[in-house]
Amino acid sequence: MKIAVLGTGMVGKTLATKLVQLGHQVAMGSRTADGDAGQEWLKSVGGKGKLATFADAAAFGEVVFDCTNGANSLAALRQAGAANLRRKILIHVSNPLDFSKGMPPTLTVCNTDSLGEQVQREFPDTLVVKALNTVACALMVQPSLAPGGHHLFICGNDAKARDKVAGWLSEWFGWTSGDIIDLGDITGARGMEMWMALWLRLYGKFGHPQFNLRLIFPNK
Amino acid sequence: MKIAVLGTGMVGKTLATKLVQLGHQVAMGSRTADGDAGQEWLKSVGGKGKLATFADAAAFGEVVFDCTNGANSLAALRQAGAANLRRKILIHVSNPLDFSKGMPPTLTVCNTDSLGEQVQREFPDTLVVKALNTVACALMVQPSLAPGGHHLFICGNDAKARDKVAGWLSEWFGWTSGDIIDLGDITGARGMEMWMALWLRLYGKFGHPQFNLRLIFPNK
Repeated sequence: MKIAVLGTGMVGKTLATKLVQLGHQVAMGSRTADGDAGQEWLKSVGGKGKLATFADAAAFGEVVFDCTNGANSLAALRQAGAANLRRKILIHVSNPLDFSKGMPPTLTVCNTDSLGEQVQREFPDTLVVKALNTVACALMVQPSLAPGGHHLFICGNDAKARDKVAGWLSEWFGWTSGDIIDLGDITGARGMEMWMALWLRLYGKFGHPQFNLRLIFPNK
Repeated sequence: MKIAVLGTGMVGKTLATKLVQLGHQVAMGSRTADGDAGQEWLKSVGGKGKLATFADAAAFGEVVFDCTNGANSLAALRQAGAANLRRKILIHVSNPLDFSKGMPPTLTVCNTDSLGEQVQREFPDTLVVKALNTVACALMVQPSLAPGGHHLFICGNDAKARDKVAGWLSEWFGWTSGDIIDLGDITGARGMEMWMALWLRLYGKFGHPQFNLRLIFPNK
């Protein structure tokens, strides 16, 4: 498949590398297309991928991962261009983290809105599905690192798009389909992004981000 | 022990009943002391407890549970009175839920502040420890309902007070000490309260609030 990965940070690189390893054609999008982070990534996968501007990557991808810095996601997606994203599934991984006030970051938007909703409002012809934002990148592409099953959440306004994304998460990254919890429409992004507040606190406590949650239920 | 439980909602009633069953002296505090909810509770425990105003209950308790409606917590605690809360541990269970804009509720405060912090700022001579707000009341007092261990969070500015509360949660309600995660100072309340956004979404999906999270970690 032709897949665009927007963003050259750790999340973008991890997803792009895994997708290349799976044999997909991957275009990594960034503002200038030829920045150091992209070059480094391309070398790390032995040249099996390509670097592009946000717009060229989005045009190339049949599906697009948004792994841009959340504070700049809307700007990056505007550069990608509504026409290049039209009728495509945008897997929205970014969290709206605001590092400008120091550590730990706060959220640029929350409670009565979310970055997922902002993106969907600005790109109404794109099928935005929020996913993967609740775990660190190592777990995103290898959930089996943590034993015994743990949960991932997805949401988005289009049920078929959510099902497709859930299928890809299983097929590409190994998420057990029963462990992917469908939260319904894109307003589910509020809870998925606000989980970051507790996640970041736990990251600070443990000194690493290698954990996830499993939901447990009382015995009937 | 003499224990005050402020609030006559489901959470207050559940905690107060459990504490009475354990043989503690419990005063349930409310605005008027003689409302229907309190009367009903007192009957349900065979009169083994007492009803009081917020102020009288707070004066009576060696430790105070705040189970008031989060949107009114500060007002209720003002009625309880700073003098009656001075140097006492206040176990702050309330969530800052705003039901005024419909369901699901949003938060009255979040991201860069929390209800836990607001309470601690307003009552600087009280040892505020946020706890139990992340689970439904049945699980609060009987974590063994859900099998295999799941996690609870506490935070507060005073380490000794946090340790005391953790001890009580184990002794009174049966939380395994290793499953109580100490998040440090009261700013940890942000994450604990913001978890509500995801929790409420899951509540809506499952149709019941009987679940909790277990943190899982990759194998070393």
